[in-house]
Amino acid sequence: MVGMIDSQRYPRLSRIQVPADLRRFPEEELPAIAEELRAYLIEQVALVGGHFGAGLGVIELTVALHWLYETPVDRLVWDVGHQCYPHKILTGRRDEIHTVKQHGGVAPFPKRDESQYDTFGVGHSSTSISAALGMAIAAQRKNDERKIVAVIGDGAMTAGMAFEALAHAGGMTDPEPNLLVILNDNQMSISENVGGVTKMLGRLTGSRTLNAIREGGKKLLGDKRKPAAKFVRRWEEHWKGMFVPSTFFEEVGFHYTGPIDGHDLPALLGAMKTLKGLKGPQLLHIITTKGKGYELAEGDQIGYHAVGPFDPEKGLISKPGAKKPSYTDIFSEWLCDMAAADERLMGITPAMREGSGLVRFSKEYPQRYFDVAIAEQHAVTLAAGMACEGAKPVVAIYSTFLQRGYDQLVHDVAIQNLDVLFAIDRGGVVGPDGATHAGNLDLSYLRCVPNMVVMAPADEDECRKMLSTGHRYEGPAAVRYPRGTGPGVAIQPGLDTLPIGKAELRRQGSRIALLAFGAIVPAAEAVAAELGLTLVNMRFVKPLDRSLIVELAKSHEGFVTLEDNVVAGGAGSGVAELLAAEGIVLPVLHLGLPDEFQHHASREQLLAEAGLDAASIRASVLKRWPQLLAVPPQTAIR
Amino acid sequence: MVGMIDSQRYPRLSRIQVPADLRRFPEEELPAIAEELRAYLIEQVALVGGHFGAGLGVIELTVALHWLYETPVDRLVWDVGHQCYPHKILTGRRDEIHTVKQHGGVAPFPKRDESQYDTFGVGHSSTSISAALGMAIAAQRKNDERKIVAVIGDGAMTAGMAFEALAHAGGMTDPEPNLLVILNDNQMSISENVGGVTKMLGRLTGSRTLNAIREGGKKLLGDKRKPAAKFVRRWEEHWKGMFVPSTFFEEVGFHYTGPIDGHDLPALLGAMKTLKGLKGPQLLHIITTKGKGYELAEGDQIGYHAVGPFDPEKGLISKPGAKKPSYTDIFSEWLCDMAAADERLMGITPAMREGSGLVRFSKEYPQRYFDVAIAEQHAVTLAAGMACEGAKPVVAIYSTFLQRGYDQLVHDVAIQNLDVLFAIDRGGVVGPDGATHAGNLDLSYLRCVPNMVVMAPADEDECRKMLSTGHRYEGPAAVRYPRGTGPGVAIQPGLDTLPIGKAELRRQGSRIALLAFGAIVPAAEAVAAELGLTLVNMRFVKPLDRSLIVELAKSHEGFVTLEDNVVAGGAGSGVAELLAAEGIVLPVLHLGLPDEFQHHASREQLLAEAGLDAASIRASVLKRWPQLLAVPPQTAIR
Repeated sequence: MVGMIDSQRYPRLSRIQVPADLRRFPEEELPAIAEELRAYLIEQVALVGGHFGAGLGVIELTVALHWLYETPVDRLVWDVGHQCYPHKILTGRRDEIHTVKQHGGVAPFPKRDESQYDTFGVGHSSTSISAALGMAIAAQRKNDERKIVAVIGDGAMTAGMAFEALAHAGGMTDPEPNLLVILNDNQMSISENVGGVTKMLGRLTGSRTLNAIREGGKKLLGDKRKPAAKFVRRWEEHWKGMFVPSTFFEEVGFHYTGPIDGHDLPALLGAMKTLKGLKGPQLLHIITTKGKGYELAEGDQIGYHAVGPFDPEKGLISKPGAKKPSYTDIFSEWLCDMAAADERLMGITPAMREGSGLVRFSKEYPQRYFDVAIAEQHAVTLAAGMACEGAKPVVAIYSTFLQRGYDQLVHDVAIQNLDVLFAIDRGGVVGPDGATHAGNLDLSYLRCVPNMVVMAPADEDECRKMLSTGHRYEGPAAVRYPRGTGPGVAIQPGLDTLPIGKAELRRQGSRIALLAFGAIVPAAEAVAAELGLTLVNMRFVKPLDRSLIVELAKSHEGFVTLEDNVVAGGAGSGVAELLAAEGIVLPVLHLGLPDEFQHHASREQLLAEAGLDAASIRASVLKRWPQLLAVPPQTAIR
Repeated sequence: MVGMIDSQRYPRLSRIQVPADLRRFPEEELPAIAEELRAYLIEQVALVGGHFGAGLGVIELTVALHWLYETPVDRLVWDVGHQCYPHKILTGRRDEIHTVKQHGGVAPFPKRDESQYDTFGVGHSSTSISAALGMAIAAQRKNDERKIVAVIGDGAMTAGMAFEALAHAGGMTDPEPNLLVILNDNQMSISENVGGVTKMLGRLTGSRTLNAIREGGKKLLGDKRKPAAKFVRRWEEHWKGMFVPSTFFEEVGFHYTGPIDGHDLPALLGAMKTLKGLKGPQLLHIITTKGKGYELAEGDQIGYHAVGPFDPEKGLISKPGAKKPSYTDIFSEWLCDMAAADERLMGITPAMREGSGLVRFSKEYPQRYFDVAIAEQHAVTLAAGMACEGAKPVVAIYSTFLQRGYDQLVHDVAIQNLDVLFAIDRGGVVGPDGATHAGNLDLSYLRCVPNMVVMAPADEDECRKMLSTGHRYEGPAAVRYPRGTGPGVAIQPGLDTLPIGKAELRRQGSRIALLAFGAIVPAAEAVAAELGLTLVNMRFVKPLDRSLIVELAKSHEGFVTLEDNVVAGGAGSGVAELLAAEGIVLPVLHLGLPDEFQHHASREQLLAEAGLDAASIRASVLKRWPQLLAVPPQTAIR
């Protein structure tokens, strides 16, 4: 049932609106509450979809945290908020959780505007330790005794930013910061984890010799008279480090506790009670299972990371029949085709094999496939290094995550004019994941970088051609394509390229020229056809098609630029700069995304809100040039 | 003597033009060559200035590397290139090293365009492992046996990016990458190092018990019959980890060797010869002294990091008398004054205490001063966390390094509209450090971010007022000021603020209005006065002064926008966007930095090259509006 909890089925959870209600229950009932919470989460996500596996993995932890700590006075920071659904259910949003990701509904990540229990907006990973440390310091300086806890996954721990924060917190003295970091180790981010950190953490689990050796050690240590005693005591302090990752955290200055089964509530609470009384930077290492308690999700952790509505009994059902390929699918296929044609191609992803469409490539070209973990900075400079040796790296990355590699794009790739292709997925309006995942800024922050070639495809076939173009181009290039599907244009199988910096005049009309970039071309084309205007598919954000723009400026009364990027510094602004540089004075109307962060909603809703659907575009053009209606359309169209 | 090496004084170095010449010397002569190289470096840098201490610290290492490896076929990647002067001297640039940092001279960092021995441009720190790994992978995939070596300082190792690269390289299997990382541990970056990594590395040195314990351990281990033998063997594998940081590197998958005295050439060569034959990711830990061999530099490592010309006998001489305060000085003083007035203020620097002007603050307010190491990402999100608890953090950062915290600025600060002030030093043209350190892009990449307030001061007093304005403003704000000194305006001592989004009409002229941002205002003002034009000190890049712009558009024939940022997406572009949004059609001329990376030269030279000195501005305005000269100036001026 939606929006109304069943008090028969959930006798305890139905009495919990906020954590204070939870804290009225005795400790013995917490396991039962956790079971209700898990069942409710499965029920609700099955109804409406959303992030799933991560939440199931932290059911017990969430219950323990809100029961033990005085939230919201004590602060919980959830790294990569997709584990926050149980938290949201326990903190006043139980009856609205079914609206998650929808327009006006609950946000899929913690959001400060939404609840005082959401202490920090966490959409991108690996920010929690930095944020929590900042809170801990600020509180400490005010002699404020509130507790601060960050919960971070082992996947998020692979990012350099988390390491920076650990090292800073661990290195602080006089005073030490009071901070608990809970490492939620499920050996998964969205994809499987990779790299040295994972290898290190992985030594722990499955080590069946661990306990045997510990027992042996105890015997040895028992005899204090042995001459080895002094050395063995030293060894004792460090022996955990031989088998568990304590050393790593202790070396950077944290006090390490663990590992503990994160689904064993009594054990978890036991450890957490002790830690709550300690000062200084603490790390609690818990082991959990992503998807815990829902067998299908445990068995397919990648598939159940985020889901659409599903049948709780049967699980996910793959939709039958041929569907329109997404831009991600187009990239995926292109990557394998180009890899077959050019053995210099290398594919790099920062932990987004599935999301970015590298699954097939990773299987067919394992020697040329590099998942670098959640490490966007490294991903970009790794590519730069490869390019120095004549390889042709492709960095497949979401627009929003490329922000993490911006310095590397500028400093390591663009300044050196190196041959790196950025395949930027989720450019422009993204939608249900909200502002943290939006790709609204990329054309602005890329366009200002010298040496870059920046492309935005209007349709599927053009996306493939642009990828080939960027690959063949010997310098830094970016193809930026939207989330989801395109207009449905048939994709030609070859590896044809487009001429750099040449736009496509799609419709020769009169009076006003619409200069459209990327995903907005189809809507603009409809408006141009209706009003008899000229329509250009600009294709290249940089370099612009100078000669065509100058030519059209001579024969038109005004330009409309259209893009799914913020207007500020966007592609349309580039057109205006070009006109100014040419000394051309012409009315220009810039249509694009607003100078504000868009909330979560569907992509279509957000585009319409921004005035980028065909009806809004038409209205904007006519508002600016009402006289277009005075002339009958048939006159305007040639 | 400049440009001509003295073969009497440098009998060996004078015979070395390129590393092949070096390799013709027998190993026994290398220490003597190192001494000559050190003397020559001191002589040359004393003559012309440049980065100094870091180079002195790697004299022996540089000699060893070029002697042992087949450069340039084998690849050396020098992290943070300021240690590269000895490398440059040995690789064809001995006689030109005195031109370093000058227009047309040798670049202060490795530069691919300059030499085939400069394998990777390294101005920002912590990129070398990523780049070297990329090279190693690309070479390996081509079955190319060339060797790849990265040299990284312990300071650079504090950045998350270096950790990401270590973890990726260490986690790779099938095949492992063949890569040598040399950790050059001098316990310094530019400032003193801080944080957990430093603490960890620091355990090593000064540990006088280390050798004693090792001896004890050997005795114990010698007796294989002891029942403890099995455990002690395990312990033996890990005992280094108890006292040296091997564990850290070995946990992420590197094979660790060290520590070795990096000034002991025979020891260094011994270790390096062994490592050259090994496969897989290797880490060699060497201990060096920044400034080694020049007593004054050893004693003042921060002061001698980078120097102007000096007397080798007497060292640096501080210039006497009152000099004009730099923008950094202004920030420094403001920070202490505001800290006195507002106890919520916190000051954060990513390892740039000296460069960013936080020395006094760090001494007067140690509890509110945070050097987070080279960790720009963490610096920004730490500030966001502090702001959540009501603190008012100030992130003091160079423009070019803020690129490393871009995602955090967007995702953690701006989306949440948190109260963080960015004090951005070295905005716009920076000069002698070259393209890697330029601040040419910041107005573009900041302006597109919703919620940001972005200011650029025209003079010293305004800089102070803007800092106060940004501090008082309850949301994300940036004050972006240039390197060096301003026009010399007297600074009022208070903490007065400016109205947000209000420009200053400095000169009411006629026909054309110059809208100038930040450091370009004085030059623009001179031109306006001469030609009788209107001059506006815009002050705010975002939000713009809408009403003034609209007002001026009505009374002028055209606008000129002026800024020391790239034109692409810059402040001037914002003016054009505003006019377009208002439906105002007016000729606009954008003057700003070009769409290319500027090479190293003086700030004045680069501004002139970009057409931003008064003479060039005047010429550009008159080229666009020749009719301005047709009217006698006295008529134009009211």
